[in-house]
Amino acid sequence: MVVRVAVNGYGVIGKRVADAVAKQDDMQLAGVIKTKPNYEAKLAIKKGYKVYVPDAASLDLFKKANVPCEGLHENLFSKCDLVIDCTPAKMGADNKKNIYVPKKLKAIFQGGEKDNIAEVSFVAQCNYDKAVNKNYVRVVSCNTTGLCRTMGAVDKAFGIESSKVVLIRRAADPNDIKTGPINAIVPETKIPSHQGPDVQTVLPIPIETVAIKVPTTLMHVHVVFIKMKKPATAQDVKNVFANTTRIALYNAADGFESTAHLIDYARDVGRYRYDIQEIMVWEDSIYVNGNELAYIQAVHNESDVIPENVDAIRAMFNLCDVKTSIEKTNKSFGIK
Amino acid sequence: MVVRVAVNGYGVIGKRVADAVAKQDDMQLAGVIKTKPNYEAKLAIKKGYKVYVPDAASLDLFKKANVPCEGLHENLFSKCDLVIDCTPAKMGADNKKNIYVPKKLKAIFQGGEKDNIAEVSFVAQCNYDKAVNKNYVRVVSCNTTGLCRTMGAVDKAFGIESSKVVLIRRAADPNDIKTGPINAIVPETKIPSHQGPDVQTVLPIPIETVAIKVPTTLMHVHVVFIKMKKPATAQDVKNVFANTTRIALYNAADGFESTAHLIDYARDVGRYRYDIQEIMVWEDSIYVNGNELAYIQAVHNESDVIPENVDAIRAMFNLCDVKTSIEKTNKSFGIK
Amino acid sequence: MVVRVAVNGYGVIGKRVADAVAKQDDMQLAGVIKTKPNYEAKLAIKKGYKVYVPDAASLDLFKKANVPCEGLHENLFSKCDLVIDCTPAKMGADNKKNIYVPKKLKAIFQGGEKDNIAEVSFVAQCNYDKAVNKNYVRVVSCNTTGLCRTMGAVDKAFGIESSKVVLIRRAADPNDIKTGPINAIVPETKIPSHQGPDVQTVLPIPIETVAIKVPTTLMHVHVVFIKMKKPATAQDVKNVFANTTRIALYNAADGFESTAHLIDYARDVGRYRYDIQEIMVWEDSIYVNGNELAYIQAVHNESDVIPENVDAIRAMFNLCDVKTSIEKTNKSFGIK
Amino acid sequence: MVVRVAVNGYGVIGKRVADAVAKQDDMQLAGVIKTKPNYEAKLAIKKGYKVYVPDAASLDLFKKANVPCEGLHENLFSKCDLVIDCTPAKMGADNKKNIYVPKKLKAIFQGGEKDNIAEVSFVAQCNYDKAVNKNYVRVVSCNTTGLCRTMGAVDKAFGIESSKVVLIRRAADPNDIKTGPINAIVPETKIPSHQGPDVQTVLPIPIETVAIKVPTTLMHVHVVFIKMKKPATAQDVKNVFANTTRIALYNAADGFESTAHLIDYARDVGRYRYDIQEIMVWEDSIYVNGNELAYIQAVHNESDVIPENVDAIRAMFNLCDVKTSIEKTNKSFGIK
Repeated sequence: MVVRVAVNGYGVIGKRVADAVAKQDDMQLAGVIKTKPNYEAKLAIKKGYKVYVPDAASLDLFKKANVPCEGLHENLFSKCDLVIDCTPAKMGADNKKNIYVPKKLKAIFQGGEKDNIAEVSFVAQCNYDKAVNKNYVRVVSCNTTGLCRTMGAVDKAFGIESSKVVLIRRAADPNDIKTGPINAIVPETKIPSHQGPDVQTVLPIPIETVAIKVPTTLMHVHVVFIKMKKPATAQDVKNVFANTTRIALYNAADGFESTAHLIDYARDVGRYRYDIQEIMVWEDSIYVNGNELAYIQAVHNESDVIPENVDAIRAMFNLCDVKTSIEKTNKSFGIK
Repeated sequence: MVVRVAVNGYGVIGKRVADAVAKQDDMQLAGVIKTKPNYEAKLAIKKGYKVYVPDAASLDLFKKANVPCEGLHENLFSKCDLVIDCTPAKMGADNKKNIYVPKKLKAIFQGGEKDNIAEVSFVAQCNYDKAVNKNYVRVVSCNTTGLCRTMGAVDKAFGIESSKVVLIRRAADPNDIKTGPINAIVPETKIPSHQGPDVQTVLPIPIETVAIKVPTTLMHVHVVFIKMKKPATAQDVKNVFANTTRIALYNAADGFESTAHLIDYARDVGRYRYDIQEIMVWEDSIYVNGNELAYIQAVHNESDVIPENVDAIRAMFNLCDVKTSIEKTNKSFGIK
Repeated sequence: MVVRVAVNGYGVIGKRVADAVAKQDDMQLAGVIKTKPNYEAKLAIKKGYKVYVPDAASLDLFKKANVPCEGLHENLFSKCDLVIDCTPAKMGADNKKNIYVPKKLKAIFQGGEKDNIAEVSFVAQCNYDKAVNKNYVRVVSCNTTGLCRTMGAVDKAFGIESSKVVLIRRAADPNDIKTGPINAIVPETKIPSHQGPDVQTVLPIPIETVAIKVPTTLMHVHVVFIKMKKPATAQDVKNVFANTTRIALYNAADGFESTAHLIDYARDVGRYRYDIQEIMVWEDSIYVNGNELAYIQAVHNESDVIPENVDAIRAMFNLCDVKTSIEKTNKSFGIK
Repeated sequence: MVVRVAVNGYGVIGKRVADAVAKQDDMQLAGVIKTKPNYEAKLAIKKGYKVYVPDAASLDLFKKANVPCEGLHENLFSKCDLVIDCTPAKMGADNKKNIYVPKKLKAIFQGGEKDNIAEVSFVAQCNYDKAVNKNYVRVVSCNTTGLCRTMGAVDKAFGIESSKVVLIRRAADPNDIKTGPINAIVPETKIPSHQGPDVQTVLPIPIETVAIKVPTTLMHVHVVFIKMKKPATAQDVKNVFANTTRIALYNAADGFESTAHLIDYARDVGRYRYDIQEIMVWEDSIYVNGNELAYIQAVHNESDVIPENVDAIRAMFNLCDVKTSIEKTNKSFGIK
């Protein structure tokens, strides 16, 4: 079976999801839905994607800008098996009620939606099987995905008795010029913050999080403190991370001194859009004292959830098992 | 006795220390030492401070710029009882060996120096008595001072069994236009970072720290996790902070959503230079679960150590007891 | 006569205008209107200002936050002679139509409003007399005020044949943590930009402007190129600026290398809120080649228009002549 | 002939130059010289580049880090026909005197060196022929290259009677985390700034420049005012730019609202490292009033000079004419 996929919303996440779907041999990109006829729309057309619009107002914008489109989104919804909803946070809920449910379309939502929008909150390497044959799946946020990948690996290997995480969040995406702050540190003063419970929608681990927003655009950074159920050495933990998919180890000693250097490296190795789908753990930061573990990781918020969207499709149509799906997806991104 | 104080180094810290000393009735500002005849030097002269230079090169600069000065620093050292060394990090050690020891001058160093430069590492409300009659005292760094004030209060009230702190550090002072990063998060990948042991030079508490540098200039932010020896409520902790000097409680609900708002407030209330000598704890962030405590605080790195420099002088000359000193100092800053 | 003044909108501009009015001996601050019971509202009350709210929703917020207020704004409007409208851009037009005209209240608007909202667009040292006895006056924006002050002086002394200005704009106010960009340069691609025509609402000079937004919060910077009607020397221009009110000359050679240093200086000299009501011209930048003049100036966008609001009141009630008004206002700010 | 090229200095510029040389069929990358065994060095080795070190200290660093290298740079200099010097600014002069002249090696320098280091300051489309058979050529800086490309085109088509340019400079490269400012605008107060005379080392046009540094890492932005010798329409100027190599036109109306959007686009179209070798002119900004022209352009400082380095090699060995060289170089970057 080749799953026909529509991508609703073609911004930072949507355009990446569309490209990823288009590269899979068991999927077909039926089309994308875009509100504005900007450079992203024009490039989508150049790539051969069928571009639809959500309403008459958008249709008008496309006409005025002389950018051809395939018409209203209804035409797309009738030609696809599943929708990946990449609309701005909180819009997915309305779309589900008004479109996907009435049209009996399977749908994947992103982490900006509440977890009860879907039957399962999803991170492929943590709970692929739970999404098998489901109709509604939520790929969790970039931060939650990052924590599930590494903490899930630690939990599986050593058990987690308790944990605390401080998330130092990039305040805006690189192409978002409207959002600040320009010069301030902005704490979420509600402790624990919402990310901990969000991790628990995927992994049943004890976790408390604190989130702080800072004026940078490149990546999030997490400081993770874990009390493990059994002691381990730093080398044990490194081995676990080295052997877990979608985690990559980097050393400050090799020049990876900051998020800027991780991005510079991704540019140098020719990653498309410099995207880093893996969670980057600073190997030099891994610290173990008895059963206390600490480490620092960086999350490329524009791209770490993209592989999850692809895997979720396979699970929802039961196209293959988790191992096969992750391998296929990874291969298409050129990650190990 | 009126202590004659020289301030060696007249930058961010030095100029504030000089102003603070000049306001005390049991001290006299003998003079300040400045390398460059810039606006800070000119203002010092306008304030009536005697400005000296450290060497012939500086003397020449002052002459060329037509800024009058009192000559080389030797002339100042012969007219003072104590030097507050506010030179750039690591220069204090040389100054001690080459100047203060030979000239038998008492000296106060800042947190950029190693702790073994002095007989005691100092935070007034934690260990004033240890500095009594000492010759060499180190006022610890802005971050360490901030942690000692609030964690010392928690330790005294409830005991600290273990603690973890993530320091989100402002990367440069506001008037430092040379230092970055502009758009990156820079972790210190060595865990635990040096701030924990530095706290322990003042307070014998178990503490592990992780430090992250971010592109902002206003204040540091600390996320503090403490396992207390005995349980308490959030209200108990608030009461402790409310009753501890040089700690101030602020609520995000009142509009204090970020470090930028704390500074805006300091400007509105007319704080000189918008300095905030107190450690600002977000009251809404104080979270207690059994004997686990978490809270977020902000540290104004330009000014929180200034009161400590004043108190250290009083201790080193045994001018009065800790309570009297802190009260006098606080009053001179207009803080409660 | 003592003019009873209401300030509608108590944010960055409003709170400064209120403080300025309160300091004048020929004005009385009748009250201020504030929407949110945040720290600014609480401080206003502490200062003894009467705080009103614009609607029932705000009233409710104040009640819930336990912050006392004087009730709805109607009560204030009946007790004042003039309103200074400091509400967000574009709201002034509605307020004029719905409130000030029906209630026959004189009103001053800010530069965010269109120029046709008022009978005169105002910069005191340029056109005070035009505002005499008027009912509606618009104080122009911070950028326009900055250009009118220095270019007006050049025009008066040497004449302006043509001019081009590039405005490098701070993207957000210091306490605005919502607005970006964090890492981008944002040009207004429409050339000439709107600031040129806005200057012409005050001064009949030929001017074309280009505006560029950059990620900083402190001050705007203008690069001004003027073709003068008659030749002059750089010293001539310096003399003109030195002898013009509300312009201040600073030298990079004294350490004023950036907007950050100007602010640092304002903090050091104890300016309230570090406000700099004068336009700061870098003296070293003044360059003359025949009748071609170029210079760079910095504008403190939070405060340079505050004196104009005060002077406008005096003009609108014909309390005194321009010279007297500017002197009184300057004195109250401690500027020469 | 296949020219054997050594690249001395393998940072932001050097690594790009090396990649570009390696792609040309009439050149061979003999090797690169790198001081630190960081991720860039490791990637160079992975790409099959021969990596040399400049001195014993670097050799030691490589050994300790277990990164293999080909030994000291002498070994490379004996196997190449030309060196491209990409060492930090001002080091090229020493290298010329101590290495290239004694060893009779042709050399290309970058814009950080003084113009008298070379026989010609070079921008391919402006003065390729002047570099033919020369031994020392200086590729001018990113800013100067950007101005030469567009202003050279205007000069050729319409003549330039006078011009003024404001350069709004990104303060640091993306992977430079040491350099600020974080929150300030930093003018070069010397007017005119050095960039004007630097343009004149390539193009004999009247030009005065003012330079302002701002806290961003992505691209420089130039505001260009030109008085043309003969009148033209905006469309004429657009046509000239559209028909000139290494200039690209972009419209804010297509979503190119900032430098961040230009970079986002370069990422989307799959440019290697998101490099933009062309000068990006905002088409919507092109404004003509009689013979007065204004426009805004963006310069990708990491990459716009890379094609010039390649073309300079061809000129210095007289491998082909300018048209052929530019076409070959452009093709290798995938630019039109």
